[in-house]
Amino acid sequence: MDFIKGNGVLPAIVQDYRSGRVLMVAYMNNDAWELTLQTGEAHYWSRSREEIWHKGTISGNIQIVKEIFADCDCDAILLKVEQVGGAACHLGYESCFHNKVDRNGDITIIGERIFDPERIYGK
Amino acid sequence: MDFIKGNGVLPAIVQDYRSGRVLMVAYMNNDAWELTLQTGEAHYWSRSREEIWHKGTISGNIQIVKEIFADCDCDAILLKVEQVGGAACHLGYESCFHNKVDRNGDITIIGERIFDPERIYGK
Repeated sequence: MDFIKGNGVLPAIVQDYRSGRVLMVAYMNNDAWELTLQTGEAHYWSRSREEIWHKGTISGNIQIVKEIFADCDCDAILLKVEQVGGAACHLGYESCFHNKVDRNGDITIIGERIFDPERIYGK
Repeated sequence: MDFIKGNGVLPAIVQDYRSGRVLMVAYMNNDAWELTLQTGEAHYWSRSREEIWHKGTISGNIQIVKEIFADCDCDAILLKVEQVGGAACHLGYESCFHNKVDRNGDITIIGERIFDPERIYGK
């Protein structure tokens, strides 16, 4: 994988392996990439916390990797995963992409919350 | 949309609106975002050429936007598109994600070429 173009990180697109729904996008550095390959569970690089992030450590909603794809330039990753708990988003939605944008740029929230983030994360 | 976190650009994930196949990931700056909203055809920011890129200008394989989603942090975009010509990848494949990666990191190319890039781009 080519980690140079993105200053050490690559975007990883996460797709539900059954429904094909795009769940989220996160970033991997080389360590997160190796850990994901070795463990079969999605690991990312948190740009804000600047640390490796094993998705689901707090919520229990880990991502079991079913298939991995690299794009033509080897600078983006596609993970097809089994999303444990049914929700990838820290706000409790199945997908982080729950904001539908119309042609005017206005946003409508779609989808229902699967968990209450206050109960899981205590905020 | 929050263009600050990514130094002026956001990743845009492109998904076929019928099959749900993830076709590619590209980047948008604010101008590309506005052009995409206004025209209904996908526009990106080319990080290598440092210019706005109307996808399909050369190949004819434009992307007609069917639905747009923003993620929970408004720092990533999901476009559901009709991929004119049936191929999004500049190498002639339907999807840029045609490199299947196994647990050892080895890559197998999957999928067939829909067009010959030498004929389209003359390289």
